Amino acid sequence: MKKDKTSTDIKTKTTMVIFGGTGDLTHRKLIPALYQLYINKYLPKDFSLISIGRRDKTTEEYRNDLLASTKRFSTRNLDDESFDTFSRMITYFRLDFDNEKDYDRLLEELKERDQKDILDNYMFYLAVSPDYFTEIVENLKTSKIRKKKSNWQRLIIEKPFGQDLESATKLNEAISKVFDEKDIYRIDHYVAKEMIQNINMLRFQNAIFESIWNRNHISSVQITVLEKEGVGTRGGYYDDTGALRDMVQNHLLQLLAITAMEPPKTLDADDVRNEKVKVFKALREFKDEHLSEKLILGQYNGYQKEDKVDDASTTETLVATKVYIDNKRWEGVPFYLLTGKALKNKTAQITIEFKNSSRYHYGASSEPNILEIKIQPDEGITLHLNVKQPGVIDKMAMVEMDYCQSCLYLFNSPDSYEKLILDAINGDSTLFTRWDELQLTWKYVDSIISSVKDDKSSYLRCYEMGSDGPDELKSFIQSGAKHWWYLNREY
Amino acid sequence: MKKDKTSTDIKTKTTMVIFGGTGDLTHRKLIPALYQLYINKYLPKDFSLISIGRRDKTTEEYRNDLLASTKRFSTRNLDDESFDTFSRMITYFRLDFDNEKDYDRLLEELKERDQKDILDNYMFYLAVSPDYFTEIVENLKTSKIRKKKSNWQRLIIEKPFGQDLESATKLNEAISKVFDEKDIYRIDHYVAKEMIQNINMLRFQNAIFESIWNRNHISSVQITVLEKEGVGTRGGYYDDTGALRDMVQNHLLQLLAITAMEPPKTLDADDVRNEKVKVFKALREFKDEHLSEKLILGQYNGYQKEDKVDDASTTETLVATKVYIDNKRWEGVPFYLLTGKALKNKTAQITIEFKNSSRYHYGASSEPNILEIKIQPDEGITLHLNVKQPGVIDKMAMVEMDYCQSCLYLFNSPDSYEKLILDAINGDSTLFTRWDELQLTWKYVDSIISSVKDDKSSYLRCYEMGSDGPDELKSFIQSGAKHWWYLNREY
Repeated sequence: MKKDKTSTDIKTKTTMVIFGGTGDLTHRKLIPALYQLYINKYLPKDFSLISIGRRDKTTEEYRNDLLASTKRFSTRNLDDESFDTFSRMITYFRLDFDNEKDYDRLLEELKERDQKDILDNYMFYLAVSPDYFTEIVENLKTSKIRKKKSNWQRLIIEKPFGQDLESATKLNEAISKVFDEKDIYRIDHYVAKEMIQNINMLRFQNAIFESIWNRNHISSVQITVLEKEGVGTRGGYYDDTGALRDMVQNHLLQLLAITAMEPPKTLDADDVRNEKVKVFKALREFKDEHLSEKLILGQYNGYQKEDKVDDASTTETLVATKVYIDNKRWEGVPFYLLTGKALKNKTAQITIEFKNSSRYHYGASSEPNILEIKIQPDEGITLHLNVKQPGVIDKMAMVEMDYCQSCLYLFNSPDSYEKLILDAINGDSTLFTRWDELQLTWKYVDSIISSVKDDKSSYLRCYEMGSDGPDELKSFIQSGAKHWWYLNREY
Repeated sequence: MKKDKTSTDIKTKTTMVIFGGTGDLTHRKLIPALYQLYINKYLPKDFSLISIGRRDKTTEEYRNDLLASTKRFSTRNLDDESFDTFSRMITYFRLDFDNEKDYDRLLEELKERDQKDILDNYMFYLAVSPDYFTEIVENLKTSKIRKKKSNWQRLIIEKPFGQDLESATKLNEAISKVFDEKDIYRIDHYVAKEMIQNINMLRFQNAIFESIWNRNHISSVQITVLEKEGVGTRGGYYDDTGALRDMVQNHLLQLLAITAMEPPKTLDADDVRNEKVKVFKALREFKDEHLSEKLILGQYNGYQKEDKVDDASTTETLVATKVYIDNKRWEGVPFYLLTGKALKNKTAQITIEFKNSSRYHYGASSEPNILEIKIQPDEGITLHLNVKQPGVIDKMAMVEMDYCQSCLYLFNSPDSYEKLILDAINGDSTLFTRWDELQLTWKYVDSIISSVKDDKSSYLRCYEMGSDGPDELKSFIQSGAKHWWYLNREY
């Protein structure tokens, strides 16, 4: 954690304003995260929360709602007494997103809280449908809330940030009129998962890995984010979106950049994001030649019958794509990205396959070394080694060396949102997506989408729910790697 | 296991002759090993054993003795029925080592067992005090046993092979008149321990290790073989010998060579041993300048009062020495060898300390990566990594990735002697010590001994029984490594 450089000598108090205070994200993630930050004493002094909803509700009622939902969704300890003191920092505020007068009322509410000689920090959190992003931000300007004297004002904005480069650009133009880029915190909660954050340390604080993290030693990288569930109640949103936009543009390409980037000069936000941007710039252009070697789209059997899904939908619920990074470190190393819904297992991991340079022949040929960075559901690191199988005959065996983080820290691993909220409060935007990252990733995903646009249905492979995906995945991986290594894991 | 090239098309039977059949080694190690080879069907067809002792004893009595001792000493399953069929291959034969006529009787015994059209393999195993080595071997010649027509005749000889270069040379000259070098199998049972055998696979079948196994990435190597017991009943032998001759000349320098050697052209015995010899030749000459930086000798408190030990003895029961290998791979990397008796823990391991190249500063400085090859009592491999400690604040933690072989294969790891006997039967001398290895290691150890000869008592540090050795060990290691890493292990 880097120190907040903006508030060293000034007395401040921090007010968080959540738009979407009665929504799912607030109940499931934001309040449990804030509560954990509170009981672990990470929240700043004089912190308070104004939670905005469109419904009529007293603060008392709202606090009771939060207690119930936090009890339900928090993965960690909760006690009523500490939750009670915590929830006294929370005020419910009724507001219609499109009603300018409500924003004026909000400004009055903020003014009433002013204290002499203390400057305000304001953190506006958009936990609402993207349809409202522009409207809310513009109203913050119109109402003069943005003009209110303060130490800092920051905007945290949830995904999706656009549906393609064009819409993302439009959205960005709108919010950039109201907030500076440095004050915009675009969330990709995946990046804040413990084991993703660990990649930097793993790569740069371990001499043994740093020296072999390149094309001379690595033969392929596999980034897999698999889900067991189908679209569930999200059919309406999902059918317009698909796996490329919903998962590849943000989570998977972020994981790729973190795995592949050059060591940044420092770990400051802009140094790190500059290096990620360089990776995105080095992505080999996605052309529609030899498409089947680079792309598999899948749709699970039954998807078209899901609620709010078009019964002739060609939306992909699975994507496998082979990506190259044309720079000195990664020239020629395929990065396989795979994500999908309604699969056999829920798992997210990054798998590094090292070149197989076994020198001698011990009966069976040796397997390549494999490094698995397990993101979820297990957190940990596994290294596959070739060793001698105990016995009087020289036989080789592949074994696993394991660091199981989730075994050790089961009750300590914080949720992504704890880290993200705390970082935003502290002015550390390392884990948030900068606009140029978004531009480049949308451009890349747009090029994939347009390559199949006219003929999408003919590319779409059907797969059974609860399976490992379409059969074609097997030959797809074998163009540049030995296996889909995640399939070898025991769940 | 390489195939026995000498007996592919010929019908043979194999007779093993143990000199010292009533001795400790035979009861504790050789018979349990042969029994395991038997029940696992590794012994060749038509195998039999003539076990020689000086006492009067019937074969029946002897077999009963073996059953009792094997029950006591075998670490693995034994059932009376299979031991009974196994022991039917064993004959007891009374012989005085210095009585030529007894060898003539032995020749007659061998002749009686001759079968038409079947050639004999003879394996003579010297499980006796080194005082008898020369006499027995010469009598094999005198009695014409060596002249008896056979497929092959091999000599297995236990350590110690001499007490210095001079005596070893004398012994070798004597046995070389009777056996060719290629038929002499000098045992160092340490080399056959599972995890020592594993080092070749670990180094050469794992691309991730092979590429970092050199001075660019490794800052030090520590080879530690520690014992809890004092000299016990071996005081008489030990007081004339000391840790340098008893442990360093053979076990520790062998471990050093296996860890440090260049990849051999093939895994054939001579290719491997050629590479080990090159390491011994590259050992930096041991001079008596700056002696305290290169050598610590210790003697445990109470040693002089042990049975059969001189009460003013200056024999070392502990040695720490810093060794350099002057070649391209290892230039400047200290190899610390440490062995001793009456210490807190029994443990043998090789610890590779990698250079600490942590790039960023996360509060605490990072520890170097450590690879531990655990030989005993645990068998396994542990890799120490720096990772992110789970939590919203970026803190580093050192964790261990573990491959615990003894956890997985507790009842499968064979004793060294199983491997060694089988290899000798199969004509694979890879794990046995060639004469030039012995020459060079004796020369090296002689030079250490002569460097302190005149003033040994002033170099000898006293340490308490059950301690971690003399206090000076700590500053000794810090001249070129971070810690004695074995001390950080939990036992």
